[in-house]
Amino acid sequence: MEELFAPESLLAFTRAIFQRMGYAYDAALLAAEVLLKADLRGIDSHGLARLPGYIRLWEAGRIRVDAHPQVVHETPSTALVDGHQGLGLLVAPFAMRIAMRKAQEVGSGWVAVKNSNHFGIAGYHAMMALEAEMIGIALTNASPLVAPTFSVERMLGTNPIAVAIPAGDEPPVVIDMATAAAANGKLEILQRKGLEAPEGWIQDAMGRSTSNPFALQEGGALLPLGSRVETSSHKGYCLAALVDLLSGVLPGAGFGPWVPPFVHFLPLPQDAPEGAMGIGHFFGALRVDAFRPTDAFKQHMDRWIRRFRAARPIDSQQPVKIPGDPEREAEMQRQREGIPLHHRVVKALRELSDRFAVPFPEPLSLKHGE
Amino acid sequence: MEELFAPESLLAFTRAIFQRMGYAYDAALLAAEVLLKADLRGIDSHGLARLPGYIRLWEAGRIRVDAHPQVVHETPSTALVDGHQGLGLLVAPFAMRIAMRKAQEVGSGWVAVKNSNHFGIAGYHAMMALEAEMIGIALTNASPLVAPTFSVERMLGTNPIAVAIPAGDEPPVVIDMATAAAANGKLEILQRKGLEAPEGWIQDAMGRSTSNPFALQEGGALLPLGSRVETSSHKGYCLAALVDLLSGVLPGAGFGPWVPPFVHFLPLPQDAPEGAMGIGHFFGALRVDAFRPTDAFKQHMDRWIRRFRAARPIDSQQPVKIPGDPEREAEMQRQREGIPLHHRVVKALRELSDRFAVPFPEPLSLKHGE
Repeated sequence: MEELFAPESLLAFTRAIFQRMGYAYDAALLAAEVLLKADLRGIDSHGLARLPGYIRLWEAGRIRVDAHPQVVHETPSTALVDGHQGLGLLVAPFAMRIAMRKAQEVGSGWVAVKNSNHFGIAGYHAMMALEAEMIGIALTNASPLVAPTFSVERMLGTNPIAVAIPAGDEPPVVIDMATAAAANGKLEILQRKGLEAPEGWIQDAMGRSTSNPFALQEGGALLPLGSRVETSSHKGYCLAALVDLLSGVLPGAGFGPWVPPFVHFLPLPQDAPEGAMGIGHFFGALRVDAFRPTDAFKQHMDRWIRRFRAARPIDSQQPVKIPGDPEREAEMQRQREGIPLHHRVVKALRELSDRFAVPFPEPLSLKHGE
Repeated sequence: MEELFAPESLLAFTRAIFQRMGYAYDAALLAAEVLLKADLRGIDSHGLARLPGYIRLWEAGRIRVDAHPQVVHETPSTALVDGHQGLGLLVAPFAMRIAMRKAQEVGSGWVAVKNSNHFGIAGYHAMMALEAEMIGIALTNASPLVAPTFSVERMLGTNPIAVAIPAGDEPPVVIDMATAAAANGKLEILQRKGLEAPEGWIQDAMGRSTSNPFALQEGGALLPLGSRVETSSHKGYCLAALVDLLSGVLPGAGFGPWVPPFVHFLPLPQDAPEGAMGIGHFFGALRVDAFRPTDAFKQHMDRWIRRFRAARPIDSQQPVKIPGDPEREAEMQRQREGIPLHHRVVKALRELSDRFAVPFPEPLSLKHGE
């Protein structure tokens, strides 16, 4: 069962919770906006469902409210940011702004971040670049859940790649994808519904393909994009490795199996390499007119989008989508009709409401199903 | 049947052929090196097997020997290069050098290229950055063979992503992957051997999965990485689209279904958008010490590589590989033992040898099989 809530009422609630943690109004509002953007865009696993998790990490001393992210090294087009264990939801926009400022100055900007925490949906940060007619890129590593090809061991996160590219009259192209065959959030949905997982998502503790959606809890692992050796799971492994190397190893953050877990009840990894701190991110901004006039580029973007939308479909009822279509459609619908929250999420948020004495908003209506 | 040839003898032959086309010694040698690197690294589909194709494109007026690639726009960290229909094997190293020079100056360099031709293996160009302690990136679009998710239409090339990352005592990590479930070269091998294609590589003209390795010639299409909707073929589609947008749309090259075919006998695409010229590439170079000291970075790279090599295997006979291992092993073996060429490739090269009066090298020995 789900309940529908007005986006602005959830934003105010979340902002107030972050204020209770000690953030000033503006910072609390930004963190709430980043988190809620996931719910708006239909990526329910990364939104308010995670607010209690952030609180627990803060209480465990793994997120520091008094931390201010800091540029510790830079060149005209690059920077290294130390997040000082701050909230990833705030560290990431700080770093992306630096990338955009550098792009304004010298054509492109690239910022690697160490010692951060979970930053919400990668797409939020990549899309920041759109307002400045830039191409935006956001990568992050994450707790290890994915096995490399030929291994039973969980060595890589679902390490997302997000890229936002502005268009003209058409909406921007926004790619925001985990490099696993399926993100963990999708498994959680199957678990709640009591459904089996499709072939190709997970393997069991012996490395055998399984449809058991609980296999991860029983020593199994998520599979890289490509799923099987014959269908090039090594490519998904390569992509997840690339994200880990750029966002983890390059800045000096945790990497591979040493990325700190998002949940407070798992211990920090043992034997982590010296000087590998926290979760790492990597951001890029490319000014379109650092290559060619923005108008000419946008005309071709619109042409690309229209041509792909018109690609001959297999089934006339299912036209070809443009990257970003599903999330944009979810956002339009949820802005209009409200954000559905699963009753377990509502229950957890009501507990936060009680503990922090922040009133929880009234639902718009009940939505049955799921 | 295959024959083995000494790499240096094939290099001299290929260099001499490029000289006969009109290239000066140095340019001819570089083009030959780039092309032969594919054979050395075991990517046989992109090496000397394609030399006759380049010749035919030159004869058809689609590759211009007198063209000199040119920077037509730049900022401190970016440039747009017009390849003027030159040989991609030469345009690409020219552009990558500019990216590296900019990285030397301002931390990173990003070069988009329009109006080029096929550039050999993407990995060659990405790996150029390694000599300068940089991370190298190379992307290119290519003739449309891949259908977007939900479509029967061939709209995208196998659009590769190559990234090379330096390490310390360990060999560098080198990713060089097509964004399709399987590249066309793999299908050609099955066709020669009369074998069926694995599930997940191709679809027929109706968009149904098929194991017919000739389905492409019968109106079918290659599938994006991910293969099926349930195993996230939309992510492979997103990656191929990303490569097309950065290397095609950003510079003003051909894009999507309008990328010129590599084969001379197919006509240039009709209704190509105005100002969308030739094949496009995108190159990047990131100086490691623009983020943090190279030594500290390399220590973590070595640690990453060793930890992943030691990841618990499913089968103790098949340890986990590091991206770039298979190609590096092929290169070591082929430098030592020679490069195997399929008898059809040898036949085509002997024809070039006759036509251009360039002696074809003697084989080292006969290798049976394939």
